[in-house]
Amino acid sequence: MASCWERIAALQKSNASRLCVGLDVDPDKYPAGLKGKPESTLEFNKGIIDSTIDLVCAYKPNAAFYEALGLVGLRALKETISYIGGRVPVILDVKRGDIGNTAARYAAAAFEDLAADAVTLSPYMGFDSVEPFMKYEGRGIFLLCLTSNRGSRDFQLYPEGDQLYARVARKAVEWDNGRGQLGLVVGATQDDLVGDVRQLAGELPFLLPGIGAQGGAIQAVNAAETGGGGLGVIVNASRGVIYAGSGASWRDEVRDAAMKLKETIGII
Amino acid sequence: MASCWERIAALQKSNASRLCVGLDVDPDKYPAGLKGKPESTLEFNKGIIDSTIDLVCAYKPNAAFYEALGLVGLRALKETISYIGGRVPVILDVKRGDIGNTAARYAAAAFEDLAADAVTLSPYMGFDSVEPFMKYEGRGIFLLCLTSNRGSRDFQLYPEGDQLYARVARKAVEWDNGRGQLGLVVGATQDDLVGDVRQLAGELPFLLPGIGAQGGAIQAVNAAETGGGGLGVIVNASRGVIYAGSGASWRDEVRDAAMKLKETIGII
Repeated sequence: MASCWERIAALQKSNASRLCVGLDVDPDKYPAGLKGKPESTLEFNKGIIDSTIDLVCAYKPNAAFYEALGLVGLRALKETISYIGGRVPVILDVKRGDIGNTAARYAAAAFEDLAADAVTLSPYMGFDSVEPFMKYEGRGIFLLCLTSNRGSRDFQLYPEGDQLYARVARKAVEWDNGRGQLGLVVGATQDDLVGDVRQLAGELPFLLPGIGAQGGAIQAVNAAETGGGGLGVIVNASRGVIYAGSGASWRDEVRDAAMKLKETIGII
Repeated sequence: MASCWERIAALQKSNASRLCVGLDVDPDKYPAGLKGKPESTLEFNKGIIDSTIDLVCAYKPNAAFYEALGLVGLRALKETISYIGGRVPVILDVKRGDIGNTAARYAAAAFEDLAADAVTLSPYMGFDSVEPFMKYEGRGIFLLCLTSNRGSRDFQLYPEGDQLYARVARKAVEWDNGRGQLGLVVGATQDDLVGDVRQLAGELPFLLPGIGAQGGAIQAVNAAETGGGGLGVIVNASRGVIYAGSGASWRDEVRDAAMKLKETIGII
Protein backbone atom coordinates (compact mmCIF):
# COMPACT_ATOMS: atom_id res chain seq x y z
CA MET A 1 0.00 0.00 0.00
CA ALA A 2 1.16 3.52 -0.76
CA SER A 3 2.55 5.51 2.16
CA CYS A 4 0.82 8.55 3.60
CA TRP A 5 3.31 10.86 1.90
CA GLU A 6 2.79 9.12 -1.47
CA ARG A 7 -0.98 9.36 -1.16
CA ILE A 8 -0.86 13.07 -0.32
CA ALA A 9 1.56 13.68 -3.21
CA ALA A 10 -0.78 11.83 -5.60
CA LEU A 11 -3.76 13.98 -4.51
CA GLN A 12 -1.70 17.17 -4.79
CA LYS A 13 -1.25 16.18 -8.43
CA SER A 14 -4.70 14.83 -9.27
CA ASN A 15 -6.60 17.57 -7.43
CA ALA A 16 -3.95 20.17 -8.32
CA SER A 17 -4.05 21.25 -4.69
CA ARG A 18 -1.75 21.78 -1.73
CA LEU A 19 -4.74 22.62 0.46
CA CYS A 20 -5.49 20.71 3.65
CA VAL A 21 -8.78 21.59 5.29
CA GLY A 22 -8.69 21.73 9.08
CA LEU A 23 -11.81 20.24 10.65
CA ASP A 24 -11.79 22.35 13.84
CA VAL A 25 -15.38 21.88 14.84
CA ASP A 26 -17.17 24.52 16.88
CA PRO A 27 -20.94 24.07 17.25
CA ASP A 28 -21.40 27.81 17.95
CA LYS A 29 -20.18 28.51 14.42
CA TYR A 30 -22.15 25.82 12.58
CA PRO A 31 -24.57 27.06 9.93
CA ALA A 32 -28.30 27.43 10.47
CA GLY A 33 -29.98 24.18 11.40
CA LEU A 34 -26.85 22.71 12.98
CA LYS A 35 -25.77 25.71 15.04
CA GLY A 36 -25.25 25.10 18.73
CA LYS A 37 -25.67 21.32 18.40
CA PRO A 38 -22.60 19.24 19.25
CA GLU A 39 -24.54 16.16 18.13
CA SER A 40 -24.60 17.62 14.59
CA THR A 41 -20.81 17.52 14.32
CA LEU A 42 -20.69 14.52 12.00
CA GLU A 43 -23.32 16.06 9.74
CA PHE A 44 -21.37 19.33 9.65
CA ASN A 45 -18.15 17.51 8.76
CA LYS A 46 -19.91 15.47 6.07
CA GLY A 47 -21.06 18.74 4.50
CA ILE A 48 -17.49 20.09 4.53
CA ILE A 49 -16.04 16.85 3.17
CA ASP A 50 -18.64 16.42 0.42
CA SER A 51 -18.06 20.05 -0.67
CA THR A 52 -14.26 19.92 -0.75
CA ILE A 53 -13.04 16.37 -1.30
CA ASP A 54 -11.88 17.02 -4.88
CA LEU A 55 -10.15 20.26 -3.85
CA VAL A 56 -7.83 19.03 -1.07
CA CYS A 57 -4.80 16.81 -0.49
CA ALA A 58 -5.57 16.07 3.18
CA TYR A 59 -7.96 16.76 6.06
CA LYS A 60 -6.72 17.77 9.50
CA PRO A 61 -9.09 17.37 12.45
CA ASN A 62 -7.65 19.01 15.57
CA ALA A 63 -8.37 16.74 18.54
CA ALA A 64 -8.85 19.64 20.98
CA PHE A 65 -12.12 20.72 19.36
CA TYR A 66 -13.58 17.21 19.65
CA GLU A 67 -12.28 16.62 23.19
CA ALA A 68 -13.93 19.85 24.33
CA LEU A 69 -17.30 18.36 23.31
CA GLY A 70 -16.78 15.28 25.48
CA LEU A 71 -17.81 11.79 24.39
CA VAL A 72 -20.21 13.17 21.75
CA GLY A 73 -17.27 14.94 20.13
CA LEU A 74 -14.93 11.97 20.34
CA ARG A 75 -17.51 9.72 18.72
CA ALA A 76 -17.95 12.31 15.94
CA LEU A 77 -14.17 12.38 15.39
CA LYS A 78 -14.06 8.63 14.92
CA GLU A 79 -17.09 8.66 12.63
CA THR A 80 -15.66 11.54 10.60
CA ILE A 81 -12.42 9.68 9.89
CA SER A 82 -14.48 6.63 9.06
CA TYR A 83 -16.65 8.71 6.69
CA ILE A 84 -13.56 9.98 4.85
CA GLY A 85 -12.83 6.28 4.53
CA GLY A 86 -9.33 6.47 3.09
CA ARG A 87 -10.35 8.68 0.16
CA VAL A 88 -8.09 11.46 1.47
CA PRO A 89 -5.35 11.07 4.12
CA VAL A 90 -6.28 12.29 7.59
CA ILE A 91 -3.68 14.21 9.61
CA LEU A 92 -4.83 13.94 13.22
CA ASP A 93 -3.61 17.11 14.91
CA VAL A 94 -2.90 15.98 18.47
CA LYS A 95 0.57 17.45 19.26
CA ARG A 96 1.20 14.64 21.74
CA GLY A 97 4.57 13.83 23.34
CA ASP A 98 5.31 11.48 26.23
CA ILE A 99 7.83 8.81 27.32
CA GLY A 100 8.11 5.73 25.07
CA ASN A 101 5.83 3.47 27.07
CA THR A 102 3.08 6.12 27.00
CA ALA A 103 3.77 7.34 23.46
CA ALA A 104 3.01 3.78 22.29
CA ARG A 105 -0.52 4.24 23.70
CA TYR A 106 -0.99 7.57 21.94
CA ALA A 107 0.21 5.90 18.73
CA ALA A 108 -2.31 3.09 19.19
CA ALA A 109 -5.06 5.64 19.83
CA ALA A 110 -4.24 7.63 16.66
CA PHE A 111 -3.26 4.88 14.23
CA GLU A 112 -5.31 1.91 15.45
CA ASP A 113 -8.40 3.16 17.26
CA LEU A 114 -8.94 6.26 15.10
CA ALA A 115 -7.18 4.94 11.98
CA ALA A 116 -5.56 8.28 11.15
CA ASP A 117 -2.90 8.40 8.43
CA ALA A 118 -0.65 10.95 10.09
CA VAL A 119 -0.29 12.86 13.36
CA THR A 120 1.34 15.99 14.69
CA LEU A 121 3.70 15.55 17.67
CA SER A 122 5.57 17.83 20.04
CA PRO A 123 9.33 17.16 20.06
CA TYR A 124 9.97 18.43 23.61
CA MET A 125 10.55 14.96 25.10
CA GLY A 126 12.88 13.77 22.33
CA PHE A 127 13.31 10.66 20.24
CA ASP A 128 11.70 8.03 22.43
CA SER A 129 8.49 10.07 22.39
CA VAL A 130 8.43 9.88 18.57
CA GLU A 131 9.81 6.38 17.92
CA PRO A 132 6.64 4.38 18.80
CA PHE A 133 4.77 6.27 16.08
CA MET A 134 7.50 5.41 13.55
CA LYS A 135 6.83 1.70 14.08
CA TYR A 136 3.66 2.14 12.04
CA GLU A 137 4.99 1.79 8.53
CA GLY A 138 3.62 4.17 5.97
CA ARG A 139 2.10 6.60 8.49
CA GLY A 140 3.23 10.22 8.65
CA ILE A 141 4.45 12.26 11.62
CA PHE A 142 4.75 16.04 11.62
CA LEU A 143 6.94 17.37 14.44
CA LEU A 144 6.26 20.86 15.75
CA CYS A 145 9.23 22.92 14.61
CA LEU A 146 8.47 26.61 14.18
CA THR A 147 4.85 27.30 15.05
CA SER A 148 2.58 30.08 13.85
CA ASN A 149 1.75 31.65 17.21
CA ARG A 150 3.19 34.47 19.30
CA GLY A 151 4.48 32.00 21.90
CA SER A 152 6.83 30.47 19.32
CA ARG A 153 9.26 33.19 20.47
CA ASP A 154 9.42 31.92 24.04
CA PHE A 155 11.45 28.77 23.36
CA GLN A 156 11.63 27.90 19.65
CA LEU A 157 13.63 30.98 18.66
CA TYR A 158 16.00 30.64 21.58
CA PRO A 159 18.96 30.96 21.98
CA GLU A 160 20.03 33.32 19.24
CA GLY A 161 22.40 31.75 16.75
CA ASP A 162 21.60 28.20 17.89
CA GLN A 163 17.86 28.09 17.97
CA LEU A 164 15.64 25.25 19.15
CA TYR A 165 13.58 25.12 15.93
CA ALA A 166 16.76 24.59 13.92
CA ARG A 167 17.86 21.75 16.17
CA VAL A 168 14.43 20.14 15.81
CA ALA A 169 14.69 20.41 12.01
CA ARG A 170 18.15 18.79 12.00
CA LYS A 171 17.10 16.04 14.41
CA ALA A 172 14.03 15.29 12.29
CA VAL A 173 16.23 14.70 9.24
CA GLU A 174 18.53 12.48 11.32
CA TRP A 175 15.66 10.47 12.85
CA ASP A 176 13.79 10.06 9.57
CA ASN A 177 16.99 8.87 7.93
CA GLY A 178 15.32 8.66 4.53
CA ARG A 179 12.42 6.50 5.76
CA GLY A 180 9.79 8.98 4.57
CA GLN A 181 7.89 9.18 7.84
CA LEU A 182 8.76 12.53 9.41
CA GLY A 183 7.71 16.02 8.42
CA LEU A 184 7.65 19.41 10.16
CA VAL A 185 5.01 21.89 11.26
CA VAL A 186 6.15 25.33 10.14
CA GLY A 187 3.85 28.29 10.63
CA ALA A 188 3.00 30.34 7.57
CA THR A 189 3.22 33.44 9.77
CA GLN A 190 6.99 32.84 10.04
CA ASP A 191 7.58 33.77 6.42
CA ASP A 192 11.02 35.28 7.08
CA LEU A 193 12.26 31.99 8.56
CA VAL A 194 10.46 29.35 6.49
CA GLY A 195 13.23 29.30 3.90
CA ASP A 196 15.78 28.80 6.64
CA VAL A 197 13.91 25.74 7.93
CA ARG A 198 13.73 24.39 4.37
CA GLN A 199 17.53 24.72 4.10
CA LEU A 200 17.95 22.56 7.20
CA ALA A 201 15.21 20.04 6.51
CA GLY A 202 16.12 18.76 3.07
CA GLU A 203 13.13 17.08 1.46
CA LEU A 204 10.95 16.62 4.57
CA PRO A 205 7.29 17.52 3.98
CA PHE A 206 6.08 20.69 5.71
CA LEU A 207 2.64 21.21 7.17
CA LEU A 208 1.97 24.96 7.06
CA PRO A 209 -0.82 26.26 9.28
CA GLY A 210 -1.50 29.94 9.79
CA ILE A 211 -2.79 30.96 6.36
CA GLY A 212 -6.03 32.95 6.64
CA ALA A 213 -7.37 33.65 10.14
CA GLN A 214 -3.88 33.72 11.62
CA GLY A 215 -2.57 36.13 8.97
CA GLY A 216 0.06 33.91 7.36
CA ALA A 217 1.48 35.02 4.03
CA ILE A 218 1.29 33.15 0.77
CA GLN A 219 4.98 33.80 0.08
CA ALA A 220 5.72 31.42 2.97
CA VAL A 221 4.32 28.61 0.85
CA ASN A 222 6.86 29.13 -1.88
CA ALA A 223 9.72 29.40 0.60
CA ALA A 224 8.63 26.07 2.06
CA GLU A 225 8.76 24.16 -1.23
CA THR A 226 11.50 21.60 -1.63
CA GLY A 227 12.24 22.43 -5.22
CA GLY A 228 12.60 18.67 -5.66
CA GLY A 229 9.95 16.32 -6.96
CA GLY A 230 8.73 15.32 -3.50
CA LEU A 231 5.68 16.12 -1.48
CA GLY A 232 6.84 19.56 -0.48
CA VAL A 233 4.29 21.58 1.36
CA ILE A 234 0.77 21.02 2.67
CA VAL A 235 -1.07 24.23 3.48
CA ASN A 236 -3.69 24.04 6.20
CA ALA A 237 -6.66 26.36 6.51
CA SER A 238 -9.47 25.83 9.00
CA ARG A 239 -11.74 28.67 10.11
CA GLY A 240 -11.48 30.59 6.82
CA VAL A 241 -12.90 27.64 4.90
CA ILE A 242 -15.22 25.64 7.13
CA TYR A 243 -17.14 28.65 8.50
CA ALA A 244 -17.38 30.47 5.16
CA GLY A 245 -21.15 30.02 5.02
CA SER A 246 -23.95 30.31 7.55
CA GLY A 247 -27.21 30.06 5.63
CA ALA A 248 -28.91 27.29 3.65
CA SER A 249 -26.27 27.40 0.89
CA TRP A 250 -23.35 27.04 3.31
CA ARG A 251 -21.95 24.02 1.47
CA ASP A 252 -21.57 26.08 -1.72
CA GLU A 253 -19.87 28.91 0.17
CA VAL A 254 -17.46 26.45 1.80
CA ARG A 255 -16.68 25.04 -1.64
CA ASP A 256 -16.09 28.54 -3.05
CA ALA A 257 -13.77 29.44 -0.17
CA ALA A 258 -11.77 26.22 -0.59
CA MET A 259 -11.57 26.71 -4.35
CA LYS A 260 -10.33 30.30 -4.01
CA LEU A 261 -7.74 29.37 -1.41
CA LYS A 262 -6.49 26.40 -3.40
CA GLU A 263 -5.95 28.70 -6.36
CA THR A 264 -4.28 31.42 -4.31
CA ILE A 265 -1.88 28.89 -2.85
CA GLY A 266 -1.12 27.64 -6.31
CA ILE A 267 -0.36 24.23 -7.66
CA ILE A 268 2.97 22.48 -7.81
CA MET B 1 -12.82 27.22 47.59
CA ALA B 2 -9.28 26.08 48.28
CA SER B 3 -6.95 26.00 45.27
CA CYS B 4 -5.56 22.77 43.83
CA TRP B 5 -2.16 23.46 45.43
CA GLU B 6 -3.76 24.14 48.82
CA ARG B 7 -5.80 20.94 48.64
CA ILE B 8 -2.75 18.83 47.74
CA ALA B 9 -0.74 20.47 50.54
CA ALA B 10 -3.51 19.71 53.03
CA LEU B 11 -3.57 16.03 52.01
CA GLN B 12 0.22 15.84 52.17
CA LYS B 13 -0.19 16.83 55.80
CA SER B 14 -3.27 14.85 56.81
CA ASN B 15 -2.22 11.66 54.97
CA ALA B 16 1.47 12.28 55.71
CA SER B 17 2.15 11.52 52.06
CA ARG B 18 3.84 13.00 49.03
CA LEU B 19 2.67 10.06 46.92
CA CYS B 20 0.56 10.54 43.79
CA VAL B 21 -0.71 7.31 42.25
CA GLY B 22 -0.66 7.24 38.45
CA LEU B 23 -3.77 5.58 37.01
CA ASP B 24 -2.15 4.29 33.79
CA VAL B 25 -4.69 1.65 32.92
CA ASP B 26 -3.67 -1.39 30.89
CA PRO B 27 -6.26 -4.19 30.68
CA ASP B 28 -3.52 -6.77 29.93
CA LYS B 29 -2.12 -6.12 33.40
CA TYR B 30 -5.41 -6.10 35.34
CA PRO B 31 -5.74 -8.74 38.07
CA ALA B 32 -7.64 -11.99 37.66
CA GLY B 33 -11.30 -11.46 36.83
CA LEU B 34 -10.68 -8.07 35.18
CA LYS B 35 -7.70 -9.00 33.02
CA GLY B 36 -8.03 -8.30 29.31
CA LYS B 37 -11.31 -6.42 29.73
CA PRO B 38 -11.23 -2.71 28.81
CA GLU B 39 -14.81 -2.47 30.06
CA SER B 40 -13.53 -3.31 33.57
CA THR B 41 -11.39 -0.17 33.70
CA LEU B 42 -13.66 1.74 36.07
CA GLU B 43 -13.88 -1.26 38.38
CA PHE B 44 -10.09 -1.61 38.35
CA ASN B 45 -9.64 2.08 39.17
CA LYS B 46 -12.24 1.91 41.95
CA GLY B 47 -10.20 -0.91 43.51
CA ILE B 48 -7.02 1.19 43.34
CA ILE B 49 -8.73 4.29 44.70
CA ASP B 50 -10.51 2.46 47.55
CA SER B 51 -7.20 0.83 48.56
CA THR B 52 -5.08 3.98 48.50
CA ILE B 53 -7.21 7.07 49.08
CA ASP B 54 -5.89 7.66 52.61
CA LEU B 55 -2.27 7.16 51.45
CA VAL B 56 -2.00 9.71 48.63
CA CYS B 57 -2.02 13.45 47.98
CA ALA B 58 -3.21 13.19 44.34
CA TYR B 59 -4.16 10.82 41.52
CA LYS B 60 -2.73 11.17 38.03
CA PRO B 61 -4.54 9.42 35.17
CA ASN B 62 -2.47 9.56 31.99
CA ALA B 63 -4.84 10.25 29.08
CA ALA B 64 -2.87 8.11 26.62
CA PHE B 65 -3.87 4.89 28.32
CA TYR B 66 -7.56 5.77 28.14
CA GLU B 67 -7.41 7.09 24.58
CA ALA B 68 -5.81 3.83 23.43
CA LEU B 69 -8.96 2.01 24.58
CA GLY B 70 -11.21 4.20 22.45
CA LEU B 71 -14.59 5.45 23.65
CA VAL B 72 -14.79 2.75 26.34
CA GLY B 73 -11.59 4.11 27.84
CA LEU B 74 -12.61 7.73 27.58
CA ARG B 75 -15.89 7.01 29.32
CA ALA B 76 -13.97 5.18 32.08
CA LEU B 77 -11.67 8.21 32.49
CA LYS B 78 -14.63 10.51 33.02
CA GLU B 79 -16.30 8.08 35.42
CA THR B 80 -13.06 7.58 37.36
CA ILE B 81 -12.65 11.31 37.98
CA SER B 82 -16.29 11.45 38.93
CA TYR B 83 -15.80 8.52 41.35
CA ILE B 84 -12.89 10.30 43.05
CA GLY B 85 -15.45 13.06 43.41
CA GLY B 86 -13.18 15.80 44.73
CA ARG B 87 -11.91 13.74 47.67
CA VAL B 88 -8.37 13.93 46.23
CA PRO B 89 -7.17 16.31 43.48
CA VAL B 90 -6.84 14.77 40.01
CA ILE B 91 -3.84 15.72 37.88
CA LEU B 92 -4.84 14.89 34.33
CA ASP B 93 -1.62 13.98 32.54
CA VAL B 94 -2.24 15.16 28.99
CA LYS B 95 0.94 17.06 28.06
CA ARG B 96 -1.05 19.18 25.60
CA GLY B 97 0.23 22.32 23.90
CA ASP B 98 -1.34 24.29 21.04
CA ILE B 99 -2.05 27.86 19.91
CA GLY B 100 -4.29 29.94 22.18
CA ASN B 101 -7.53 29.41 20.28
CA THR B 102 -7.01 25.63 20.43
CA ALA B 103 -5.49 25.53 23.91
CA ALA B 104 -8.76 27.03 25.16
CA ARG B 105 -10.51 23.89 23.87
CA TYR B 106 -8.04 21.58 25.60
CA ALA B 107 -8.58 23.58 28.79
CA ALA B 108 -12.34 23.18 28.46
CA ALA B 109 -11.91 19.43 27.88
CA ALA B 110 -9.72 19.01 30.97
CA PHE B 111 -11.27 21.46 33.41
CA GLU B 112 -14.93 21.52 32.31
CA ASP B 113 -15.80 18.26 30.59
CA LEU B 114 -13.53 16.03 32.71
CA ALA B 115 -13.46 18.30 35.80
CA ALA B 116 -9.77 17.66 36.51
CA ASP B 117 -8.04 19.78 39.15
CA ALA B 118 -4.70 20.08 37.36
CA VAL B 119 -3.06 19.19 34.04
CA THR B 120 0.38 18.64 32.60
CA LEU B 121 1.29 20.76 29.56
CA SER B 122 4.16 20.88 27.08
CA PRO B 123 5.83 24.31 26.97
CA TYR B 124 7.12 24.02 23.35
CA MET B 125 4.59 26.51 21.92
CA GLY B 126 5.09 29.12 24.62
CA PHE B 127 2.90 31.35 26.75
CA ASP B 128 -0.24 31.56 24.66
CA SER B 129 -0.49 27.75 24.79
CA VAL B 130 -0.53 27.89 28.61
CA GLU B 131 -2.53 31.08 29.24
CA PRO B 132 -6.04 29.69 28.52
CA PHE B 133 -5.51 27.10 31.29
CA MET B 134 -4.52 29.86 33.74
CA LYS B 135 -7.91 31.49 33.29
CA TYR B 136 -9.36 28.70 35.43
CA GLU B 137 -8.75 30.06 38.90
CA GLY B 138 -7.52 27.58 41.47
CA ARG B 139 -6.55 24.89 38.95
CA GLY B 140 -2.97 23.65 38.68
CA ILE B 141 -0.71 23.41 35.63
CA PHE B 142 2.53 21.42 35.56
CA LEU B 143 4.79 22.36 32.65
CA LEU B 144 7.18 19.75 31.30
CA CYS B 145 10.62 20.95 32.30
CA LEU B 146 13.19 18.17 32.68
CA THR B 147 11.58 14.82 31.93
CA SER B 148 12.53 11.35 33.17
CA ASN B 149 13.21 9.72 29.80
CA ARG B 150 16.28 9.19 27.63
CA GLY B 151 14.93 11.63 25.02
CA SER B 152 15.16 14.48 27.55
CA ARG B 153 18.73 14.84 26.28
CA ASP B 154 17.67 15.65 22.72
CA PHE B 155 16.35 19.14 23.38
CA GLN B 156 15.87 19.88 27.09
CA LEU B 157 19.59 19.69 27.94
CA TYR B 158 20.59 21.76 24.95
CA PRO B 159 22.60 23.92 24.45
CA GLU B 160 25.20 23.44 27.13
CA GLY B 161 25.42 26.34 29.55
CA ASP B 162 22.06 27.76 28.49
CA GLN B 163 19.75 24.80 28.56
CA LEU B 164 16.12 24.67 27.52
CA TYR B 165 14.89 23.13 30.79
CA ALA B 166 16.43 26.05 32.72
CA ARG B 167 14.70 28.56 30.47
CA VAL B 168 11.39 26.76 30.98
CA ALA B 169 11.88 26.87 34.75
CA ARG B 170 12.62 30.61 34.68
CA LYS B 171 9.69 31.34 32.36
CA ALA B 172 7.34 29.34 34.61
CA VAL B 173 8.28 31.53 37.58
CA GLU B 174 7.76 34.66 35.45
CA TRP B 175 4.39 33.49 34.06
CA ASP B 176 3.09 32.29 37.41
CA ASN B 177 4.05 35.61 38.96
CA GLY B 178 3.02 34.43 42.41
CA ARG B 179 -0.47 33.33 41.32
CA GLY B 180 0.03 29.77 42.57
CA GLN B 181 -1.05 28.07 39.35
CA LEU B 182 2.12 26.77 37.69
CA GLY B 183 4.36 23.86 38.65
CA LEU B 184 7.01 21.81 36.86
CA VAL B 185 7.43 18.19 35.81
CA VAL B 186 10.92 17.12 36.82
CA GLY B 187 11.95 13.49 36.35
CA ALA B 188 13.21 11.66 39.44
CA THR B 189 15.77 9.97 37.17
CA GLN B 190 17.48 13.36 36.79
CA ASP B 191 18.71 13.36 40.38
CA ASP B 192 21.93 15.24 39.55
CA LEU B 193 19.93 18.15 38.09
CA VAL B 194 16.82 18.30 40.26
CA GLY B 195 18.52 20.59 42.76
CA ASP B 196 19.51 22.90 39.93
CA VAL B 197 15.88 23.17 38.77
CA ARG B 198 14.79 23.88 42.35
CA GLN B 199 17.30 26.76 42.50
CA LEU B 200 15.71 28.33 39.41
CA ALA B 201 12.09 27.60 40.25
CA GLY B 202 11.70 29.15 43.68
CA GLU B 203 8.64 27.77 45.41
CA LEU B 204 6.88 26.21 42.39
CA PRO B 205 5.48 22.73 43.08
CA PHE B 206 7.28 19.86 41.33
CA LEU B 207 5.62 16.75 40.00
CA LEU B 208 8.27 14.01 40.05
CA PRO B 209 7.60 10.94 37.91
CA GLY B 210 10.18 8.19 37.36
CA ILE B 211 10.35 6.64 40.81
CA GLY B 212 10.08 2.85 40.63
CA ALA B 213 9.71 1.26 37.17
CA GLN B 214 11.77 4.03 35.56
CA GLY B 215 14.58 3.72 38.12
CA GLY B 216 14.39 7.20 39.66
CA ALA B 217 16.23 7.73 42.93
CA ILE B 218 14.71 8.75 46.23
CA GLN B 219 17.42 11.35 46.79
CA ALA B 220 15.85 13.29 43.92
CA VAL B 221 12.82 13.85 46.12
CA ASN B 222 14.83 15.65 48.75
CA ALA B 223 16.64 17.75 46.16
CA ALA B 224 13.24 18.81 44.81
CA GLU B 225 11.90 20.10 48.14
CA THR B 226 11.46 23.83 48.48
CA GLY B 227 12.67 24.03 52.04
CA GLY B 228 9.86 26.51 52.50
CA GLY B 229 6.45 25.83 53.95
CA GLY B 230 4.80 25.32 50.55
CA LEU B 231 3.60 22.35 48.61
CA GLY B 232 7.05 21.24 47.53
CA VAL B 233 7.10 17.96 45.72
CA ILE B 234 4.53 15.43 44.55
CA VAL B 235 6.02 12.03 43.74
CA ASN B 236 4.22 9.98 41.13
CA ALA B 237 4.35 6.20 40.86
CA SER B 238 2.19 4.20 38.50
CA ARG B 239 3.12 0.65 37.44
CA GLY B 240 4.93 -0.22 40.68
CA VAL B 241 1.78 0.43 42.69
CA ILE B 242 -1.27 -0.30 40.57
CA TYR B 243 -0.04 -3.65 39.22
CA ALA B 244 1.42 -4.86 42.53
CA GLY B 245 -1.16 -7.65 42.80
CA SER B 246 -2.66 -10.12 40.35
CA GLY B 247 -4.69 -12.60 42.41
CA ALA B 248 -7.86 -12.30 44.47
CA SER B 249 -6.14 -10.19 47.15
CA TRP B 250 -4.81 -7.63 44.64
CA ARG B 251 -6.34 -4.70 46.49
CA ASP B 252 -4.35 -5.55 49.62
CA GLU B 253 -1.14 -5.87 47.62
CA VAL B 254 -1.76 -2.50 45.97
CA ARG B 255 -2.33 -0.96 49.40
CA ASP B 256 0.89 -2.55 50.72
CA ALA B 257 2.89 -1.26 47.76
CA ALA B 258 1.48 2.27 48.15
CA MET B 259 2.12 2.21 51.91
CA LYS B 260 5.74 1.09 51.46
CA LEU B 261 6.43 3.67 48.78
CA LYS B 262 4.82 6.47 50.77
CA GLU B 263 7.10 5.61 53.67
CA THR B 264 10.20 5.31 51.50
CA ILE B 265 9.52 8.72 50.01
CA GLY B 266 9.08 10.14 53.47
CA ILE B 267 6.79 12.77 54.85
CA ILE B 268 7.32 16.50 54.88
